[in-house]
Amino acid sequence: MEEFNILALLTILAGAWLGGTAAKRLGYPPILGELVIGIILGPAVLGLLETSEMIAVLAEVGIILLMVYIGIEINFRDLGKASWPGLLAAIGGFVVPFGLGYYTILLFDGTHLAALFVAIAVGVTSLATKSRILVDLKLLNTRIAYVLMAGALISDTLALIIFAGMLSFVDAGSIDTLGLIFVAGKAILFFALTALAGYFLLPLLGRFLSDQKIKNRTFHFTLILLIVFGFCELAEMADLHSILGAFMAGLFIRDGVFNRQISKEINDIFHDISIGFLAPIFFVSAGFHVTLEVFQSDLLLLISVTLVAVIGKIVGTALFYLPSGYGWREGITVGTGMNGRGAVEIIIAGIGLEMGIISAEIFSILVFMAIFTTLSVPLFLTWTTDWLRRRGELVHQESRKGTLILGANPLGLYLARHLNQEGDVTIIDTNRELIEEAKKQGFKSILGNALKEETLDEANAVEKNTFIALTGNNEINLLAAQTVHNYFYIPKNIVLVAPKEGGAGMELLDRIGASSMFANKTNLAPWIYKLKSGNIQEKTETIETKISTRNWVKQNRSRQDDILPLFIINLEGNLRPFHFHDEIDAGEKVLYLH
Amino acid sequence: MEEFNILALLTILAGAWLGGTAAKRLGYPPILGELVIGIILGPAVLGLLETSEMIAVLAEVGIILLMVYIGIEINFRDLGKASWPGLLAAIGGFVVPFGLGYYTILLFDGTHLAALFVAIAVGVTSLATKSRILVDLKLLNTRIAYVLMAGALISDTLALIIFAGMLSFVDAGSIDTLGLIFVAGKAILFFALTALAGYFLLPLLGRFLSDQKIKNRTFHFTLILLIVFGFCELAEMADLHSILGAFMAGLFIRDGVFNRQISKEINDIFHDISIGFLAPIFFVSAGFHVTLEVFQSDLLLLISVTLVAVIGKIVGTALFYLPSGYGWREGITVGTGMNGRGAVEIIIAGIGLEMGIISAEIFSILVFMAIFTTLSVPLFLTWTTDWLRRRGELVHQESRKGTLILGANPLGLYLARHLNQEGDVTIIDTNRELIEEAKKQGFKSILGNALKEETLDEANAVEKNTFIALTGNNEINLLAAQTVHNYFYIPKNIVLVAPKEGGAGMELLDRIGASSMFANKTNLAPWIYKLKSGNIQEKTETIETKISTRNWVKQNRSRQDDILPLFIINLEGNLRPFHFHDEIDAGEKVLYLH
Repeated sequence: MEEFNILALLTILAGAWLGGTAAKRLGYPPILGELVIGIILGPAVLGLLETSEMIAVLAEVGIILLMVYIGIEINFRDLGKASWPGLLAAIGGFVVPFGLGYYTILLFDGTHLAALFVAIAVGVTSLATKSRILVDLKLLNTRIAYVLMAGALISDTLALIIFAGMLSFVDAGSIDTLGLIFVAGKAILFFALTALAGYFLLPLLGRFLSDQKIKNRTFHFTLILLIVFGFCELAEMADLHSILGAFMAGLFIRDGVFNRQISKEINDIFHDISIGFLAPIFFVSAGFHVTLEVFQSDLLLLISVTLVAVIGKIVGTALFYLPSGYGWREGITVGTGMNGRGAVEIIIAGIGLEMGIISAEIFSILVFMAIFTTLSVPLFLTWTTDWLRRRGELVHQESRKGTLILGANPLGLYLARHLNQEGDVTIIDTNRELIEEAKKQGFKSILGNALKEETLDEANAVEKNTFIALTGNNEINLLAAQTVHNYFYIPKNIVLVAPKEGGAGMELLDRIGASSMFANKTNLAPWIYKLKSGNIQEKTETIETKISTRNWVKQNRSRQDDILPLFIINLEGNLRPFHFHDEIDAGEKVLYLH
Repeated sequence: MEEFNILALLTILAGAWLGGTAAKRLGYPPILGELVIGIILGPAVLGLLETSEMIAVLAEVGIILLMVYIGIEINFRDLGKASWPGLLAAIGGFVVPFGLGYYTILLFDGTHLAALFVAIAVGVTSLATKSRILVDLKLLNTRIAYVLMAGALISDTLALIIFAGMLSFVDAGSIDTLGLIFVAGKAILFFALTALAGYFLLPLLGRFLSDQKIKNRTFHFTLILLIVFGFCELAEMADLHSILGAFMAGLFIRDGVFNRQISKEINDIFHDISIGFLAPIFFVSAGFHVTLEVFQSDLLLLISVTLVAVIGKIVGTALFYLPSGYGWREGITVGTGMNGRGAVEIIIAGIGLEMGIISAEIFSILVFMAIFTTLSVPLFLTWTTDWLRRRGELVHQESRKGTLILGANPLGLYLARHLNQEGDVTIIDTNRELIEEAKKQGFKSILGNALKEETLDEANAVEKNTFIALTGNNEINLLAAQTVHNYFYIPKNIVLVAPKEGGAGMELLDRIGASSMFANKTNLAPWIYKLKSGNIQEKTETIETKISTRNWVKQNRSRQDDILPLFIINLEGNLRPFHFHDEIDAGEKVLYLH
C-alpha cells in the first residue's frame, strides 16, 4: 500500500479549516476558502501538496456523504411553498446559461461533450441561502430568500438529472437510436427504482424498526449507509455516477421515515462527517488540479465563461421570472442571489476531469468561475436588495409561518389576537374551559398535552415559525420548547420564565437556543388578573436609538411591575414578540401593557 | 485513480453488518463476526473480494478513529477504583503470555522481531466488558467486572506502550547503544509531549472555547480531528505508528475538557463513524489476508500459539492476582474473562504484516487465535463464575457507587435511610428546612437546584450509580433526570411520576432511558402524610416465581392506595429501588409500605 500520509491529511484539514473559517468570517461560504487554500497549497502556487490515492479515496467518500446530506436537506414541504416562482427562477437560471455556456465552448473549438459539461457547470446554482449572506443582508424573512432556496434546490435537482442523462450518452458514444433508448431507459429505470424504493420501502422499513422498538443510533446509521451505498451501486449499474445514488438516497431519508430523535442525530452525523471532515478534502484537492496558466493561455475563454455564467444566470432568471408576476426587479435580485456556484458545480467539473472529458485548463476555468461568481453574490445582492428596499418592493415572507402558543390563559389569547395579523396562530392547552374560550374567540385551538408529539403533530408544529410557551409552569414551558426545538425544528422558541427559586431557570434556555418572553422573569398571575379585570391599557413607545430588549427592560426597571412589553412593531407595522435575544432598532415601537 | 469500487465497499459493509449482528445475537463482540465474514468473503474461502487501495485507506482512517474512541472511553477515574487488582491482573495477564509467546516463535525458528509481535498479540486483552457477556452472566455489578474493565484498559495501554518501544527498535535495527538511546528518547519524548499537551493545553483550549461561547459542534469536531491527526503526525515523527497518536489524543479528550453536551455528541460521532462505518472495513479486510492453509502447513504452531495465549493469560493473571488477596479462584475467573483478543490485537498484527515483520501465515494464526480465544470467553467465564457463585465467592461491587436523591421530603429520607446500607447517599433539595432536617439525620445533603450543573457537580453526580427524582413536580423530576443522564451519565435513572393530566408523563421517560419509581404513577402527598403521622408499617413479601415489577403492581391493584413498593431485596440481602424496568427473581423480596 502506498504510504498513508498523515502529514498531507493534516495539512489539508488544517488548511480547509483555516480557509473555510476565514471565508465564513468574510461572509462567504466555506467552500470558497477551501478552493483557494487548495490552489495555494497545490501545484499551482506553493506545490506543497498534490493529489494522491489516499486523498482521492477520502474525497470520494466525502462527496458521496455530502450529496446524501444535500439530499436530506432538501425538504419537499418547504419547497412546495415557493415552488412556482422558484421553479421559474430555477429553469430560467439554468437553461439560459446552459445554452450560452454550450455555444461558448463550441465557439472556442471544444468538443460537444466538454461543452455539455461546461454548460451544466455554468447552469447550476449554489445554496447561497445556507451562507451568512442572507442573514447579513437581513433577507431571511423575505420572499426573495424563499425563492432563492427553492430555486437553488430545484436547480440542483435539475442539474443532477440532466447530468445523469448526459453521462448516459457519454457512455453510449455514437450509437444507433435503439442503443440510445436502451441507455436512456437504464437512467430512467434508476430514477424510477430509487424513487419507488425511497417512497415505499423506506417508510416501511422505518415503521418496522419503530415497531420493533429498535432505537440504536449506530444501527440506524449503518443501515442508512448501506442504503446509500446500495443506491450508489444502482446508479453505477445504470451507468450513472454514484453521487446521483447518494443524492436520491438523501432525498428520501427525510423527516418522519425514522424515529424523529434518531433522524436528527443521524442528520448531524452526516453533516459533521461530510462538512466537518471529508468533503473539505475534496474541495481542497480540487484546487490541486487547478493551473494558474489559464490566466495567460486561456484568458479570453476564462472571461467568456465567467461572463456567460453571470449574465446568463441573471438575465435568464429575470426573464423566466416574469410570469410569476413579482416584477423584473425582483427577478434580477433573485438572479444575483442565484449567481454563486458551489459544491455541485465543483463535483461535476471534477467528474468531467476524471473522465477525461474536460481538460485541466477547462477544469481550472470552471474552478475560477466558481470562485468569481461566489465572490460576486454578496456584492451584487447588496446592490439589488438595497434597490428593492429603496423602492419598497422587498416583500416579506416567512419560510415557516405562524405561531404556536402554549397556554390558553387570557394573556395567551391577548398575544394571539395581535399575532393573528401576522399569520396563523394555534393555541394548545390541557384545560378544557380555556380551550373552549379560545375557540369561542375564533382561534385554532387544540386540547392536549404539548409535551406529546401527537399533540404537536396535530398543531402542525413543523410548519410553525415561532413557539411561545406561556404556562405558569417553568418546567413545562421548557420541556415543551425542548420538544418543538428537537423534533419539530421550530426556529424561534420563546419561553415564559416565572421568578421562583429552584426548578428550571434562565440558564437552561441556552441549551436549546430559546429566549425568555418579555426579556425578564415574569409572574403570570398578576397580569392575568389585570387582563380579566380590564384594568389595563395598551401603550406604545417609539425607540430613538437602537437598544437591546434586555437594556430596554433595565431602563424601565423602576416601573417593572406596572408594565409588560409584549411586542416590537417594526417600521412596516409588523409585530414580533418581545423577548430576550432581540434588539429594537431606531424607529421601531415597543407595545406594552400598563 | 484506481476505480473507486462501490460494490466492494457495499459488500464489506453489508457483510460486516450481518456478521457483527449475528455475533452480537450469539453474545459475542461484533469484531468476531466481522473477522469471520472477512475470511469467508476474502481469498481464503469465496474469493469475492480482496484488499485494494480504497479499502486500505478507509480501514486506516477507521482504526485511527477507533483508537481515538478507545482512548476516549478510558476513564482514569473509573480505572482508579480497581486500579490495584486491575493492575495486577493486567501485568500478569500480559507478561506471562508475552514471554511464552516470544519463546514459542523462537522455538519455531521465527525471527526475534516476529516473536516480539506475536508476544504482544498474545499479551493484549480485548475489552470483553463492552460485550454482552457480562450482562448475560449478570456480572455487571461484581468486583470481577470491575477488575476486568480496569485490567483490559491497563493492558491495552501497556501493550501500546511496549508496541511503541518495539517499533522504535524495529526502525533502529542493529545499531549501537547511542543510537538506541536516541530511538528510545524519541518515543519517550513523544509520550511526554502528547501527555503535556493533552494535560495542559487541551483544557486551556477548552476553557478558551467556552469563554468565547463557541458551541458549534462541527467546529469542535473538526478541531478535535486536527488534534488527533496532529498527535498522529507527532507519533510518526517519533518513528511510532499513528495509532499511538490517535490513542493518546483520545485519552485526553475526556470529560470536562470541552462543554459537556458537545463532548457527548462528539463522542457519539466518533463511535458511529468508527464502529458503525470505517472500523468494520478494517476488521473485514483483515480477514482478506488470512489463509486457511495454516491449518495444514502450520497446525502445530497454530495450536501452540493458541494454547500459549489461553494458558499464559489465565495462569499469568491468576498468579499475579494473588497479592490482591482476593483469592486464586477469582484470579482464574478474571483470567478467563481477559482471555479474548480483539481490536488492538488485530490492529497490531495488521501493522506487523504490513511492515513485513510477520508472514501471512503468522498473521493468519494470530487472527484465528483471536477468534478462538474470543469464542472461549463466554464458555470459560460461565464455568468459572458459576463455580464462584456456588462457593459464594462472587463479590458485588458497583462501578459507580451510591445514590443521588432529589427531594428531601420524608419519603426521600425514608428511602435514603435504607439505601445508606448500600453505599453513599446524597440528597438534593431547594428547600432549606428539609435539607436541615436531612443533615440532622446525618445525610450528605446539598441545598441547591438539581437542574444546575454546579449543584450536580457539588453532589459528585459523575460518581453516582443511581438517581432518584422524588419531588412532587413531574417536570422537575424529568428535567433533572435528563440532566444527570446527558451530562453525568448516571446509568440508573428513576423518576417519580405523579398522576396528573398534561405535563410530563410516562412517555417522556423513554427518551432518556429512565424508569418510573414504584413502577406506577404515584401521588407523593398521601404517603408523606402517612409517614409523618407514623401511621405506616414496613412489610416484605417473598416472591415465588419471577415476575416483572409492573405485573407485581398489577397483581396488587386492589390495594393500590394502601401499599407502596419501595425496594427489592435480593438473595444476598441487598436492596435496590422498586421501579418499572426491573424484574423480581424467585426468592427475592419486595419491601413495601402499608
